[in-house]
Amino acid sequence: MEKPRFIIEASEAKSLAQSKGLTLTQLLPNIVKSAQPLARVPISKFHVAAVGVGISGRIFIGVNVEFPNLPFHHTIHAEQFLLTNLSQNKETQLQYLAVSAAPCGHCRQFLQEIRGASDIPLLITNSDSSDFTSLSQFLSHPFGPHDLLPKHVPLFLEPRHNDLSLLDLEAEASIDDDSIAGSNGYNNNNQLKIAALEAANESHAPYSESPSGVALLDSSGNVYKGSYMESAAYNPSLGPVQAAIVGFIAGGGDGAAEYGDLVEAVLVEKEDAVVKQESTARLFLSSISPNCRFNVFLCASNNNINKN
Amino acid sequence: MEKPRFIIEASEAKSLAQSKGLTLTQLLPNIVKSAQPLARVPISKFHVAAVGVGISGRIFIGVNVEFPNLPFHHTIHAEQFLLTNLSQNKETQLQYLAVSAAPCGHCRQFLQEIRGASDIPLLITNSDSSDFTSLSQFLSHPFGPHDLLPKHVPLFLEPRHNDLSLLDLEAEASIDDDSIAGSNGYNNNNQLKIAALEAANESHAPYSESPSGVALLDSSGNVYKGSYMESAAYNPSLGPVQAAIVGFIAGGGDGAAEYGDLVEAVLVEKEDAVVKQESTARLFLSSISPNCRFNVFLCASNNNINKN
Ligand SMILES: [Zn+2]
Ligand SMILES: [Zn+2]
Repeated sequence: MEKPRFIIEASEAKSLAQSKGLTLTQLLPNIVKSAQPLARVPISKFHVAAVGVGISGRIFIGVNVEFPNLPFHHTIHAEQFLLTNLSQNKETQLQYLAVSAAPCGHCRQFLQEIRGASDIPLLITNSDSSDFTSLSQFLSHPFGPHDLLPKHVPLFLEPRHNDLSLLDLEAEASIDDDSIAGSNGYNNNNQLKIAALEAANESHAPYSESPSGVALLDSSGNVYKGSYMESAAYNPSLGPVQAAIVGFIAGGGDGAAEYGDLVEAVLVEKEDAVVKQESTARLFLSSISPNCRFNVFLCASNNNINKN
Repeated sequence: MEKPRFIIEASEAKSLAQSKGLTLTQLLPNIVKSAQPLARVPISKFHVAAVGVGISGRIFIGVNVEFPNLPFHHTIHAEQFLLTNLSQNKETQLQYLAVSAAPCGHCRQFLQEIRGASDIPLLITNSDSSDFTSLSQFLSHPFGPHDLLPKHVPLFLEPRHNDLSLLDLEAEASIDDDSIAGSNGYNNNNQLKIAALEAANESHAPYSESPSGVALLDSSGNVYKGSYMESAAYNPSLGPVQAAIVGFIAGGGDGAAEYGDLVEAVLVEKEDAVVKQESTARLFLSSISPNCRFNVFLCASNNNINKN
């Protein structure tokens, strides 16, 4: 079985288009169609794929992911998957977007976190038109980041470092000690702690100033990071475990990425956070992967630590 | 202190407009402005009010409500508050909508659950224009209920009864026994069970077929019902406790409506539900009102019961 692919390298995308006599943007509907079966939609059976071309020329794929037994707010939409995928691969701008069906309002809102969102050209591949239309046509008079934030604050996909450190100093001190391996072959959770701290440092949480990050470990020893990502409209925000699940699905082994393969999870969040993820992350993980261990470590911004 | 008002009766609205020499729709910006201070926005400080005129001529008010320490998906937007308010007061159609700021995409999506949503005239009171524009101008090419459901399925605000019964037959049998009072002066939880079952029967959950309802009891013995309400786009769905909190804020005593005044909560949901609310409802309640007791009762649709 061919490994499902959630990124297509720029050179490969280019030659794929050339081989079909298409431009890169003309190629997108094909990619959307081939990605739709990757959606995980046990409830709706409604397969959505969102495909984006980044400024690097790479093509990124997102699909929708549903979780039975949990409230719907845990659902990951294809456009959210796509944006998380772009971010996890350090793509700094989305140049074209193609989606299998009209994006819902929740996603049109989520997309506003990108600077210049209104100008992103969007194609709906199941519609009669084969033209790209700017996102502003789909969400006119948008509510967005600049209704709440100064213009200079980094938006989603823009480089960011939240300057967080773990509060547990012993954990910090032993962070470089990669030689400590667990009896089952993977490192103890220092590696996961570092990864979760990195994810928290990359988290886009300008509205609550409560960044957080998750790192997941699977039974093969692979680590997947996820950064909490906020929306100016609050509710469309994507939780850090969901973001890490995107990494797990996009990067996971042979592509089957069974949640039951997750053996350990670490959440890093601020002690005094306005938005606390711990209880919800625990609830979500215990539903999708009951045997996955879950640890939480607190952090603080270095600004605050220095102040004290 | 005057009691905050979340409904204005038709006759009162009419004479209020006449006294100012305004039409009913011209009156709405005033009402929006006077409602904004009712928003509960400890995090954003961004006060939103949404005001709607129902087909009965009554005017309904909604405000945004934020909950510190919890993920943002628990937030109730003003438009969600408004729609819940309409529903709890058996208003079957929204004729005009005025909001203090451009609705976010999440709310534009949530509004799609109303039949004919695209035609609802919408006014944004902080904008330069004093004209109403149809909702379709704010969410063109909408994704909505009819992408997933047959046309005849009742939408939000339309009469609905989910034909649910409690599984605990003893509880059912004693439902009429109002004489059993708790030692602290209010009935034992039969009254709450009935109310929560009614709320579940009124729940709009056509996508998961997992209706649910909550009833809250405050220390004065008042009961507030809330029905789970789904969105075709899943994530904008409003949980049953949130819906009951809308009832609590809108109807609560002198309007102060302190969450700490809640003494008991009952959730009714289906045993075999695809979307289970219990863990999330418990987490939410224990955060906003730690001393509120929480009970869950299972129900089943009578169709299924008869089949067995
Ligand atoms: Zn969506
Ligand atoms: Zn909203």
